[in-house]
This record gives sequence, structure tokens and C-alpha cells, in this order.
Amino acid sequence: MVSPRHPRGDAAPVPALDFSSVHAIGIDIGGTKIAGAVVSEFGEILASDRRPTPAKDRDAIVDLVVDMVQGLREGYEVGAVGVAAPGFIDAAQSTVYYAPNISLRNEPIQARLAERIDLDITIDNDANAAGWAEFRFGAGRLVSDMTMLTIGTGVGGAIVVGDRLLRGGFGSAGELGHMRVVPDGLPCGCGARGCIEQYGSGRALLRMANGIADVGGIGMRLAEQRAKHGELTGKHLAKLIQEGDPGALAALRELGRWIGAACASLSAVLDPQVFVIGGGVSSAGELLLEPIRESYLTHLPARGYHPEPGFVTAELVNDAGVVGAADLARVHAQPR
Amino acid sequence: MVSPRHPRGDAAPVPALDFSSVHAIGIDIGGTKIAGAVVSEFGEILASDRRPTPAKDRDAIVDLVVDMVQGLREGYEVGAVGVAAPGFIDAAQSTVYYAPNISLRNEPIQARLAERIDLDITIDNDANAAGWAEFRFGAGRLVSDMTMLTIGTGVGGAIVVGDRLLRGGFGSAGELGHMRVVPDGLPCGCGARGCIEQYGSGRALLRMANGIADVGGIGMRLAEQRAKHGELTGKHLAKLIQEGDPGALAALRELGRWIGAACASLSAVLDPQVFVIGGGVSSAGELLLEPIRESYLTHLPARGYHPEPGFVTAELVNDAGVVGAADLARVHAQPR
Repeated sequence: MVSPRHPRGDAAPVPALDFSSVHAIGIDIGGTKIAGAVVSEFGEILASDRRPTPAKDRDAIVDLVVDMVQGLREGYEVGAVGVAAPGFIDAAQSTVYYAPNISLRNEPIQARLAERIDLDITIDNDANAAGWAEFRFGAGRLVSDMTMLTIGTGVGGAIVVGDRLLRGGFGSAGELGHMRVVPDGLPCGCGARGCIEQYGSGRALLRMANGIADVGGIGMRLAEQRAKHGELTGKHLAKLIQEGDPGALAALRELGRWIGAACASLSAVLDPQVFVIGGGVSSAGELLLEPIRESYLTHLPARGYHPEPGFVTAELVNDAGVVGAADLARVHAQPR
Repeated sequence: MVSPRHPRGDAAPVPALDFSSVHAIGIDIGGTKIAGAVVSEFGEILASDRRPTPAKDRDAIVDLVVDMVQGLREGYEVGAVGVAAPGFIDAAQSTVYYAPNISLRNEPIQARLAERIDLDITIDNDANAAGWAEFRFGAGRLVSDMTMLTIGTGVGGAIVVGDRLLRGGFGSAGELGHMRVVPDGLPCGCGARGCIEQYGSGRALLRMANGIADVGGIGMRLAEQRAKHGELTGKHLAKLIQEGDPGALAALRELGRWIGAACASLSAVLDPQVFVIGGGVSSAGELLLEPIRESYLTHLPARGYHPEPGFVTAELVNDAGVVGAADLARVHAQPR
């Protein structure tokens, strides 16, 4: 299961400081798979593992994480374990209050793992872990204040202020998908209405594309694809965007306008030097960043009196969760 | 000019740690007056001074601050000076980029003061200074994460996360009045549209009250007052609110609903343990807090999975600026 990327004798050069020669293990519990890795102090993955999530059995999840950690630590000096989980984590970083897609409800996962693993263990939200990885080793590495928006099926987020991850007083800061952007707007899965998730997510993009397909004109090819496959999927849309289809690009620009306006509000609150856009939709690159930037400037308060932040796409797409979880655990175990 | 509140021999008991026996001076530059005070490490004002702002003459502002500091430090062991100014301050806390109501534009005020005062000097935004005072000595003193909304003529804000003031990557975080809450909403003085300042400020409250006066019914007494005085002012409204006039209370509830919804968005982003409501309108107390709380819960994402934050009014109304500026300067001079 464990696939070492470096044979034991071939590790990266050991840096000057003692603490930094200790690796950390990152575990990313997802809805369909659990990923794990031994990560160096430079964010390098030294060994990794990946298995299907026993999503309906919380005891099996704990067993699997323990087994994965035991396998991964073989042959490495590991100082800490960071576990990233989807959902609400308490401020003490020990309990998963609620994870929508897996069977964790008020689960004291830190304590359950600590009983069986003799390493410093911390729990973090998966979006926070991914954002931290971008801040330390990816698109946010040159700044002190970064806001990351993850545009996947929903909209997630992570916030770094003054070189620290913003966890919030109750542990659930950075839930950026649930900023309200339209009074009495579209209903959201969170129970509220008008959340940016309903206007700036991959699911919203599909809704917009379907709307354009319905009216013909530039929506012609969208309508064709929909008729051919029975429905439009993210894959169809991504292909049409890459081909420059005007209907698909119009949907992407509409999404970008919502995200850009939300970023203007986030500038007023958080004032980051850089916005990192991640998630599946960010693979559109400049085609997405351009309407975001344009809309941001249109909606920016006191434009002209404020330096313009950077807008960039995420860099550590696949490994961000495990790399960030490991690095947060290292920071936690060895405060500087 | 300087009015000592404690004669020299009557100071508060000196605490155990050395650094904490040094006082700091806080200066709060406002549009109409400049306030200054010697502040103890417990937030106690030992001596104070107050003079009219020479708003149109930036050299005179600097002269006045220097003179005030020299006067205030007489007889006190002062370790640092904190200056609070309205407007955008750079991230290095040295330059006032832009202050709408006084003649400071790209003014390197830290350097100009440092030439003439041999003390550690830092500059902060006035809303941030007031928020810091609430966090250290007032309504936010029991928590690590606090969000303050100041409802005066406009809407200001200050954010503390993990016991630290959130200044942002460019120095202008916490401009909470300029979160967009309505797409293509009312035009705002900042150049954007739909900012919460247009729905949750004292000025917005007057607009709502005038709207209620226009339609009669519960607006009858508002209309009477308006006819009698030529216009409705904050003072008339405050009086009617205290008297329980249903029209005035309806306007206050409408404002509270907007603020509560904005707080729900701010919970998603910042997740504070407490929201502190300051500014003139907060003198309505529970009459304002109640609709804020109610609207907050209506709009809170994932209600039921999230502990409920506190909603309280500010405690240090008049002295918050000088107390906060002094304490930020002390923290800056003596990092712990």
C-alpha cells in the first residue's frame, strides 16, 4: 500500500535546525477516499497511501487512519500527525462536530486516534489544510495574508492572516461559501438563502450553462451537448470552455462576476495581498481569473486608495490536503 | 490643558512584571477634536487632554500632537505613543494614505512625529484602536475572537482574531461598512453599491424613519416631529425610540435585521465568539440587539451545528480611541 517516493538512504538534505528534520504525516479524509502521506518540512511528499473511505462506519474510519499512520511512519522519523476532515471541527481541534458526507457526528476523533498512536495529533478542516498548503508551499507563499476560495461542487475557503491560519473563536472560520450575497436569494444547502455558494460554485455554473442552453443563440452548442448526453456535466462544460464556446464562456464569466464581487467584500473585511482560487473550476485559469479581477475592481470600495491584490489559481491541486494537514501538525507540535 | 486624574503619588499599584509599569500615551485624531491621554497597562486613564482639530492644516495637526504628547508625558514614565487616525493606514503603520475628513493624504505621520518625539510611535486606524480597547478592557475582554461593528453616521469595524488585531495585508482590514449586501444596491460614498453602510448606519436609520413617516400609520409621530423641526435628526429618533414609538422602533428593527444578516455572513468568514455593537445607534441597547440576534439566527448557515456568539454593546464609548491607541502602542513596543 505504502509507496515510498524516496528510498530510505535518499532523503532530502537535513537542514540546520533540529526540529525541522522531523517529518509529519498528513491524512486527508474525503467522502470517497482517504489519502495519507509522509511530508517533509519543505512540503515534499516522501511516501503516500490512498484507500477508499468506509464512509458509513466511523469505527472503520478510525481503524483505517491508525493503520495508515503505522504503515507510513515505517522508516521515517515522524514527529506529528495532522488529520484533515470535511466539516465543522471544534476550536480545540479535537472533535468533528458534523461532516455532511461521512458518518462523523460529534466524533472525538483526536482522542480516539491519540489512544492508539503515540504522536502529537491535530485535526483540521480539509479546506483549511488545503489553504495552509497553498500558503506555505504554493500560490500564497510570498505573502502574509491570503484568502483562498475553492470552487468545486460547492464553494469552500481558507484564510491566513498575519502568517497564521484563521480558525475562528468556535473553529469554523473560513466557510466562505456561506457569505450572503443576495437578500432572500436562492436557497442553500446550509439552510440559509442567497449564499455565494449558490452563485459561484461548480453547481451554479452548470445552472447558468443550462439557462444559456435554454435560450439558444450562443447557447446552441451547450444545448446540443445536453441533448446528446441527457444532461450537462462539469466535464462537458470544461471541454466547451477550452474550445472557446461562447455560451460556456458566458456562463464562466457570470460565475466570475459573482466571485469577484465577493472578493471585493472580502477585501473590506480581510484585506489579503492575494486571492487564491482553487477547486475544479479553477482549471479554467485566466478565463476565470479575468472576469473575477474585472468584477473585483468594479465593486472594490475606495478604489484607487487601495493596492490591488493578486488573483492566482491554486498550485498544489491534488496533494494540498495531506501536505497542509502535515504542516499544520508540525507547526502545532513545534511552535516557533 | 492637561488634567491629571490621579495626583502623582496616587498611582495604581505597580504589577509584578517590569514592562507593565510603563504607561503609554494614546492620541485620537478626530474630524473635530484631537483627544490624548496617558493610559496605564490596565486601560486606566491617568491624565487627558482634548483640543479642536486644525482639520485643514496638516502641519498644525502634527505640531498639536507633538505638543500634546510633551504635555501629557510630564510626570509619567511613558514608553510609547499610539496615534489613531480616521482613514486608511499602511500595513507598516506609518503613513495615513487617505483620511476623508481631515487634510491627511499620503502623510508619513509616523516619521514626522518620530523626528520630534523620542518614544516608540505607532499609527493605527481609529476604528481599530477603539475595537482593540473593547477587546482588552471592554465588551470583548473574555474572548479570543471578537468582531466589532460601529454604527454611527456610517458603519465601521474592527476585528480581533486569536488575540491579535486583524490589520490585513495592506493595512485596511476591518472596513466592515463596505461589505456588499445587495447586488446593484444603493450607491455608497466609497464608490461601490449595496454596501451594508447604506442599510445599517445611522444615516440609513434616518432614511428608514423618513420612509415610515411618509406612509402615516405607525409613522404618525415621526411625521409630526419632522414637520415641527423641519427634518428628523438622530436626536429626535433616539428620543422616540426611548419613548417606545412604534414607528421609530420599526425603523430600528429594520436596521437590526440588516446588521444581523451581515453578522451571519461575518460568522461564516471570521467566526467570532462575540459581536460588539458600538457607535451612537448602539445606545438603543437591547432594542437594537434583539432584532440583530433574531435576524442573525435566521440567516446563520448550518444553524444548530454552530455555537451562538454573544451580541453586546460597546462599553468604552468615549475613551475607546485613546485607550486602544495607547495599548496598541504598548503591545508594539513590548511584544510578549
